[in-house]
Amino acid sequence: MINRFYEALSNKENKMIEIRRYLHAHPELSFEEEKTAQYISDFYKDKDVEIKTHIGGKGIYGIKVTIDSGKPGKTLALRADFDALPIKEDTGLAFTSKNEGVMHACGHDAHTAYLMVLAETLIEFKDHLQGKIIIIHQPAEEKPPGGAQALIKDGILDGVDNVIGVHVISNLESNRVYYREGNVQSGRNIFKLKIIGQGGHGSSPHLANDPIVAASSFVMSVQTIVSRKLNPFDMGVISIGSFDGKGQFNIIKNEVELEGDVRGMNEETMQLIEDEIKRISHGLETMYGVKCDLEYHRDYPVLYNDPTLTKQVANAIRTSNIKEINSVERTEPLPPSEDFAYYAKELPCTFFYVGASPKDKQTYPHHHPKFDIDESSLLIAAKSVAAATFDYLGVKS
Amino acid sequence: MINRFYEALSNKENKMIEIRRYLHAHPELSFEEEKTAQYISDFYKDKDVEIKTHIGGKGIYGIKVTIDSGKPGKTLALRADFDALPIKEDTGLAFTSKNEGVMHACGHDAHTAYLMVLAETLIEFKDHLQGKIIIIHQPAEEKPPGGAQALIKDGILDGVDNVIGVHVISNLESNRVYYREGNVQSGRNIFKLKIIGQGGHGSSPHLANDPIVAASSFVMSVQTIVSRKLNPFDMGVISIGSFDGKGQFNIIKNEVELEGDVRGMNEETMQLIEDEIKRISHGLETMYGVKCDLEYHRDYPVLYNDPTLTKQVANAIRTSNIKEINSVERTEPLPPSEDFAYYAKELPCTFFYVGASPKDKQTYPHHHPKFDIDESSLLIAAKSVAAATFDYLGVKS
Amino acid sequence: MINRFYEALSNKENKMIEIRRYLHAHPELSFEEEKTAQYISDFYKDKDVEIKTHIGGKGIYGIKVTIDSGKPGKTLALRADFDALPIKEDTGLAFTSKNEGVMHACGHDAHTAYLMVLAETLIEFKDHLQGKIIIIHQPAEEKPPGGAQALIKDGILDGVDNVIGVHVISNLESNRVYYREGNVQSGRNIFKLKIIGQGGHGSSPHLANDPIVAASSFVMSVQTIVSRKLNPFDMGVISIGSFDGKGQFNIIKNEVELEGDVRGMNEETMQLIEDEIKRISHGLETMYGVKCDLEYHRDYPVLYNDPTLTKQVANAIRTSNIKEINSVERTEPLPPSEDFAYYAKELPCTFFYVGASPKDKQTYPHHHPKFDIDESSLLIAAKSVAAATFDYLGVKS
Amino acid sequence: MINRFYEALSNKENKMIEIRRYLHAHPELSFEEEKTAQYISDFYKDKDVEIKTHIGGKGIYGIKVTIDSGKPGKTLALRADFDALPIKEDTGLAFTSKNEGVMHACGHDAHTAYLMVLAETLIEFKDHLQGKIIIIHQPAEEKPPGGAQALIKDGILDGVDNVIGVHVISNLESNRVYYREGNVQSGRNIFKLKIIGQGGHGSSPHLANDPIVAASSFVMSVQTIVSRKLNPFDMGVISIGSFDGKGQFNIIKNEVELEGDVRGMNEETMQLIEDEIKRISHGLETMYGVKCDLEYHRDYPVLYNDPTLTKQVANAIRTSNIKEINSVERTEPLPPSEDFAYYAKELPCTFFYVGASPKDKQTYPHHHPKFDIDESSLLIAAKSVAAATFDYLGVKS
Repeated sequence: MINRFYEALSNKENKMIEIRRYLHAHPELSFEEEKTAQYISDFYKDKDVEIKTHIGGKGIYGIKVTIDSGKPGKTLALRADFDALPIKEDTGLAFTSKNEGVMHACGHDAHTAYLMVLAETLIEFKDHLQGKIIIIHQPAEEKPPGGAQALIKDGILDGVDNVIGVHVISNLESNRVYYREGNVQSGRNIFKLKIIGQGGHGSSPHLANDPIVAASSFVMSVQTIVSRKLNPFDMGVISIGSFDGKGQFNIIKNEVELEGDVRGMNEETMQLIEDEIKRISHGLETMYGVKCDLEYHRDYPVLYNDPTLTKQVANAIRTSNIKEINSVERTEPLPPSEDFAYYAKELPCTFFYVGASPKDKQTYPHHHPKFDIDESSLLIAAKSVAAATFDYLGVKS
Repeated sequence: MINRFYEALSNKENKMIEIRRYLHAHPELSFEEEKTAQYISDFYKDKDVEIKTHIGGKGIYGIKVTIDSGKPGKTLALRADFDALPIKEDTGLAFTSKNEGVMHACGHDAHTAYLMVLAETLIEFKDHLQGKIIIIHQPAEEKPPGGAQALIKDGILDGVDNVIGVHVISNLESNRVYYREGNVQSGRNIFKLKIIGQGGHGSSPHLANDPIVAASSFVMSVQTIVSRKLNPFDMGVISIGSFDGKGQFNIIKNEVELEGDVRGMNEETMQLIEDEIKRISHGLETMYGVKCDLEYHRDYPVLYNDPTLTKQVANAIRTSNIKEINSVERTEPLPPSEDFAYYAKELPCTFFYVGASPKDKQTYPHHHPKFDIDESSLLIAAKSVAAATFDYLGVKS
Repeated sequence: MINRFYEALSNKENKMIEIRRYLHAHPELSFEEEKTAQYISDFYKDKDVEIKTHIGGKGIYGIKVTIDSGKPGKTLALRADFDALPIKEDTGLAFTSKNEGVMHACGHDAHTAYLMVLAETLIEFKDHLQGKIIIIHQPAEEKPPGGAQALIKDGILDGVDNVIGVHVISNLESNRVYYREGNVQSGRNIFKLKIIGQGGHGSSPHLANDPIVAASSFVMSVQTIVSRKLNPFDMGVISIGSFDGKGQFNIIKNEVELEGDVRGMNEETMQLIEDEIKRISHGLETMYGVKCDLEYHRDYPVLYNDPTLTKQVANAIRTSNIKEINSVERTEPLPPSEDFAYYAKELPCTFFYVGASPKDKQTYPHHHPKFDIDESSLLIAAKSVAAATFDYLGVKS
Repeated sequence: MINRFYEALSNKENKMIEIRRYLHAHPELSFEEEKTAQYISDFYKDKDVEIKTHIGGKGIYGIKVTIDSGKPGKTLALRADFDALPIKEDTGLAFTSKNEGVMHACGHDAHTAYLMVLAETLIEFKDHLQGKIIIIHQPAEEKPPGGAQALIKDGILDGVDNVIGVHVISNLESNRVYYREGNVQSGRNIFKLKIIGQGGHGSSPHLANDPIVAASSFVMSVQTIVSRKLNPFDMGVISIGSFDGKGQFNIIKNEVELEGDVRGMNEETMQLIEDEIKRISHGLETMYGVKCDLEYHRDYPVLYNDPTLTKQVANAIRTSNIKEINSVERTEPLPPSEDFAYYAKELPCTFFYVGASPKDKQTYPHHHPKFDIDESSLLIAAKSVAAATFDYLGVKS
């Protein structure tokens, strides 16, 4: 049966790619994925399966599909995210985004496409399964506070024993699967800093108090946290992604606003960075006579892969002899954060990776306007998760 | 006749204030002053005077009103500007801007109002005058390249012997008139600097090249030009009014754009600052591995007041015994630039100042969201210019 | 025999401590350890052993003691360093440095003391040994280029199969032994940067070119290498330990000189940092119009512990039942560099650590004026190395 | 008589130059000018004149020579300074400094030489004079608190009506005399800032707190005072002449010390800069977690030239027809500070300038290791002061 299952997936490879390309051409921003959710739920409409939409409460487009084998057994959830990013696509692909300024630049189109087709196939093979499989189509992974928390609050994990998730990665070699147990993706904090000076005319700086200079000094001082305050053996990153100081060339602004992103692989690092950013912004107030309004909040936690489950999943894939997979290997930790981490705070979970580096063109990192993937990763994701699922549920070949 | 003239102006003080408040409530940005120009030209429609509109070419709303006494004599031009600024008003005035985000925050409403009423009165007293008076209602003073050059190119100074202009100044004491011969307002250069790094994800700075950090370093380095490279006895200012780096908190941007404003009271200073900004942006490219696209261009020149004309005008006002004027005094140079400087490159001109510090509330500098003026400055401007005009044209009392 | 050996060491614990205190009171700087070397060689004078001094060439005080069992077997070298640091001691110890400004602030006094007494005991038990033991008393570990290279060049490793070294560590808990295979201590590069501006009088900065401002800008820019250019998962450190810009308060200096220290746990990081420091110093030249003379040179390599030997040594200690040792555990990599790394580039070596955190007072880091150790670490070092030696040479109990 | 006097001075030009060269070869630092003072007082030993030495109290080598005509009249003091600077001479002159590291790099050798010979000549012509002339040979002008205050406290101005001083200036054209009434040389403040972090090893910055980074950030922030806080029309300078952070390349220092120099042409500027430096150092404490010990003290005040006396002196020189003087002209204010300002706080004084730009070689600014002067300035200084003195005392030709 398992070989027939893999064969069925192979036969649907084009379908996965078509779905992925449709989603790619119709991206929606986090918390605004109304049409994407409709598209996904329409897919399941005529299928023999229970589907619940609008999970997560008002404005959250979570979808839960329950595939019940009717036989006893564990309940395994499979999760894929489906939101896109506020990036102006520059790939030149035939199926480039039709929603200018919004782009699937992180592979969530691939995640959703493989999981839809995998789910369809699992429904077709339902009688051969054990226990239950919950398909979680999750919105809003990219934007804090993320969709996972809302779905969890709304009960999506009720009765679930474990969750498996997958990410395609453009920087990892194609035809390979990667795993790691323990802390595998960084935690994230977010801050906004409004620096309020005093507006005035550019020709009379002494009658004003220039917030752009104060903010630039802040940016430079913040660099010293990672370079001087962190243990050099610890991972920590502070990126100030936004410096909102647009104005008129000759007018000194009243205020500017910075927004930043903080990463770390352990709690001590996150705390140290928070303390130092607060310290620097307080010092800035005195140093430049400005007022600093700092909003600092904890966001996605460190993603912790349950070691037992992770090894079990890696082993299941390794021994499955899926012909498209060249190797299953242990990866280093990955810098991005993932709101899959919230599931992992509730239950033993594992999140693994499928290499998707384009074979015949340049690789661009995730979130880049030219980001693209090797579409062979879709089938590999589907087969890998299938292998893990069968092993987990005790489905025999 | 002159005393009657002053009396007529006094009687029209409310009218000036009404016009100023109307203009204040209906501000338009530089090069977009279509309705304001219409409002001004409507004012002259039924008057016994020659009026030309749309002077300056396409998209320039210059207005020239010729008041011809029919008697021989010199031709004196009086100039007032009528554009507003992209500032969100925060005065709480009853006649606050109805055009949100646009504000008369520099007093051009007052200039236009006093000059309209002065022109009307001069038309009424036309038979008592000598020579000709050209009223120049100039658009687009605030935004480079300014309106003056276009009007000059379109012949507005043809036949004109000299030009007089006035600015109300919120930081100078009310009921006083101020003058200065020689270099009186600074020259201005403008630069735009696009700093192009490499976008990427905030969690992987090593795969990107953060332009916000490079730009912040640029801002800090630029401070050393004024602090270390300039002769401390020379006036020089560099204000970076715009740091356009708005983005997403966790995405490293591809590029940011700075815009800045440079002032100086002599050509050597302007050259030195230009050289140093170019040097720093070149150094930045090497230092941070970014690309710097610098547009640097010369803008309004230093405003040079003809010494003879300036002293003549100051003396005429001083000896006119206008009761609202407490003193006529020599001022220090003023930091802002003025496109009146272009007239002064063509002809001997003078530009003087009327104190307009609000008597019963806090004073805010020009271009401030709470900028306001003492409205008594309108009548004083009108009477001062009248006194200068009569003296200049040889009109006897 | 092994138990008797341990007993003999225990009986000589006071002797070790006395020697350590004598050395502590008489520290000598790297490459100047003439009296210390004399003291060590005097110790061996009347012993039945071959001793060679002045190994390493002119000005290098290397000592090699050969303990030959007369029986066949391998040749194991044991190495301890004996130089001190240019630090003014502030411990208040009874045996505080008598050489003001020089201090054993890194534990080399302890290394030498334990190894002298261990060697003495090995000589006493020579007939029970196998093969040969080479005692390497190495000078000049603290100061580049270090003593190890000179000793190796002078043949100290001729005939040696492997080398073992030990470091006492004030920040690690006492009564514990720590090991790690692979890259265990960072590589180090060193740079000197002379920034040449133009001297002048402080009141006329425009006639000079201030190198202190340029150097400060360099220091700030260098922080961005670690914060923005490094992979956040890689270890890398840049410390500018010296900013030599002393001068007169009112005179702008001609030049200043910076000296810095670079660490990394792999070659790519070291190369990236070198490239970036060169880039920043070149950019600085353009940006500030200064001249940058940069000397950048590779120093101690990353210390690589041979995995097989390391595990063998750890296991030998773990199973030796030395009663003073509470645990033998794997440590994280350590940030400092060690010129023991040069031995490890020649032969399979291992370098391990003995916890020496003072039990009843505050712990200070190495190179701190108040640095001190728990002297129980001497006996533990001696017994641990004995255990490793006996296991290695196949000496039976 | 006056023409004979000038002739006598011309005949002594070589003597002036010889004295200047002797002094140049034997410079002494401020407050250590014992031998120079002895040399000067020896010069007057056999002359018919009253001489007092050691004026100023312990360790101050002030000399007062009283030339009393015996006739009634005013009492005019002439002042020259005689200390040198801690600069290593690099002129290659035949009479280069024999006291390595100390140099007459500001022209005080010239001041003293001209005044000695002028005084000698005045003594010779004593019978032709009126009133009294006080020759003030002042030590320690270069180093705060300066010698002037001590001399004044010790009564050197008792009975004096006015004081005249002269400075040779290498940047001003030779054969010209320059004057200015009112504020003519800047006031000076001095600060020392000790920035105390936490020492440690360069490889573990997180266990230390790097004061070199904090101090570099301070240097960069201080630049914003002049660039952003000062009125661009006001003169203000902050030079951090000393950054004492020399250490070992791989050791993070406990502390560094900065020393700086502040100039301004009015009290408001001096106060603003003081406030901002205090503000920045307080902010730095919070921002970097360091401790800042700031010593800030007021030093030489702004030098105020009495307008009446200044014009009188300028006019006297202008009408004297001294053939070596090509012009007497009004100069811009000069940036350096002068402790002659203390005399000018007590009495109406004037301080003027003699151009001394070398005719046939490059000009270096004062305090430069290659500083030199056109020696023709000595005779011009002597004749100019003679002309002013005769006019002041009413000595007829």
